[in-house]
Amino acid sequence: MSTVIEDPSFEDVLAAAERIRDHVHRTPVMTSTAIDRIVGAGLHFKCENLQKVGAFKARGATNAVLSLDNVSAQRGVATHSSGNHAAALAYAASIRHIPAHVVMPSSAPPVKKAAVAGYGALITECEPTLEARETVLDEVVARTGATFIHAYDNPMVIAGQGTAALELITDVPDLDAVIAPVGGGGLMSGTAIAVSASRPDIAIWGSEPAAADDAFRSLRDGTLYPSVAPQTVADGLLTSLSDRTFRILCERLEGILTVSEESIIRAMRLLWERMKLIVEPSGAVPLAAVLEHPERFAGRRVGLILSGGNVDLDHLPW
Amino acid sequence: MSTVIEDPSFEDVLAAAERIRDHVHRTPVMTSTAIDRIVGAGLHFKCENLQKVGAFKARGATNAVLSLDNVSAQRGVATHSSGNHAAALAYAASIRHIPAHVVMPSSAPPVKKAAVAGYGALITECEPTLEARETVLDEVVARTGATFIHAYDNPMVIAGQGTAALELITDVPDLDAVIAPVGGGGLMSGTAIAVSASRPDIAIWGSEPAAADDAFRSLRDGTLYPSVAPQTVADGLLTSLSDRTFRILCERLEGILTVSEESIIRAMRLLWERMKLIVEPSGAVPLAAVLEHPERFAGRRVGLILSGGNVDLDHLPW
Repeated sequence: MSTVIEDPSFEDVLAAAERIRDHVHRTPVMTSTAIDRIVGAGLHFKCENLQKVGAFKARGATNAVLSLDNVSAQRGVATHSSGNHAAALAYAASIRHIPAHVVMPSSAPPVKKAAVAGYGALITECEPTLEARETVLDEVVARTGATFIHAYDNPMVIAGQGTAALELITDVPDLDAVIAPVGGGGLMSGTAIAVSASRPDIAIWGSEPAAADDAFRSLRDGTLYPSVAPQTVADGLLTSLSDRTFRILCERLEGILTVSEESIIRAMRLLWERMKLIVEPSGAVPLAAVLEHPERFAGRRVGLILSGGNVDLDHLPW
Repeated sequence: MSTVIEDPSFEDVLAAAERIRDHVHRTPVMTSTAIDRIVGAGLHFKCENLQKVGAFKARGATNAVLSLDNVSAQRGVATHSSGNHAAALAYAASIRHIPAHVVMPSSAPPVKKAAVAGYGALITECEPTLEARETVLDEVVARTGATFIHAYDNPMVIAGQGTAALELITDVPDLDAVIAPVGGGGLMSGTAIAVSASRPDIAIWGSEPAAADDAFRSLRDGTLYPSVAPQTVADGLLTSLSDRTFRILCERLEGILTVSEESIIRAMRLLWERMKLIVEPSGAVPLAAVLEHPERFAGRRVGLILSGGNVDLDHLPW
């Protein structure tokens, strides 16, 4: 009795890049003399805050939706999410003119519901517990025949997220290190696959809020710990790794750097003030890692993935 | 008895582009499907908020400083300004390793003084009146031999500002119209010279807060009115035209569109939320003009100059 474990390969990332090319932005890589001076390194920011739906999530969702066969696709796609993945899946479904069902907790802020509805998703509300989310999602899938697209525990999603790093190392070929944020591990896994397969000389670092350091502890101890009641301003990084993303990160990461809430806010503000870029707290975590661990990156050329830019402008963290 | 009036020519803009090339960013032109849908036009945003010192002013100041002969340059440059031009002149002076003297009113916010000092300017404070600024500037110039570089009433400054529009019409060759904000008229004059000389088919529009509509009234009546005690959130557009910029705008503009404070804030927020770009209120005025006058631009391809991104993040206008 054996289970075939299908992890995405570098070829899957290359295929994803080809598949999604006409539907997502090839985002720019930006630099800042002022921030380089502060950190003593050469930073290259991959601007996924300028991506469709304002986050890298458009890549993975689009790759997953475009990978479906026609019969499955016609029944639609479904997920549970209150964040960027919900908007991304709705966007991706709109490309194929198929329905996107999104299960959201009734406690989600109206502004988030409106945003997801704005991308054309069909929203089903549920009680604000993980159990309720999964139960209601199962009902939606049973009723509609839609394909469940998990936010990160899905090989096609991971392969799609890896296309951001693929573009980064293509545009800036002489990087010494790459840093991405770690939440559920989808972006980080895709980044690790894209970079390690083609450029094994580049150090691949995760970055995570110290207040939500389940991935850091999991890699340190070789045991997958769930994320329990994390309290961090980086609200995109609250989720736990899956078995799949845990395994990929264990194999390919140099390590995970944890950062304080103060560093995240300082990094976010530096990006806003010095680069004029709106980046959400989760997207500022890689820069926070450089600010807190300057000795690791001194004099090096470092690629950082600014993962998203969806911020409530009426509730800024300073 | 005749006065030779030296207005900058298209050739001066081309020479400026060559002169400043290695010292300023060739800023990107960005688009937004979401905003295009709202306004019913194809908008192309020239991102001078991503320029050195966070504003187009780096272009004009750099062109003026690099145009000085060596003997003059060694004595330094001087200006009176509490805003982006002061930072830009300090930046430009640093390229030639020469002093930049900036006269600032004692009432200027400490954060602005710190920003200008951060670029290496030598600050002299004065009473917060135009008369005091000019008197103290005369003293600084007499004492140091520095060359006065006016923020906009200077042919080399105007030619430098025109390079932004030159890049815009090069990168997006099929524009129907270009819109820039009007304060003292330096950016608008440079834009008008760059566009009208090379592409007379493109309509050139100014945009101005209705609460600071001195340029609109001046062009309408053919009489140069000073800007008297304007009250607008667009604090980069408070100044009056000079004889020179008034003349250039009269000759070359299709017209000036005025906009409400509400439209400026709405435009600014659209740029932040939909494009993830930090743009200052003055820089949002061209988009406000499209929002208020959609019939003029319906179905057209329009280039807008996002003039700057220097905002006090602790005092946002919403």
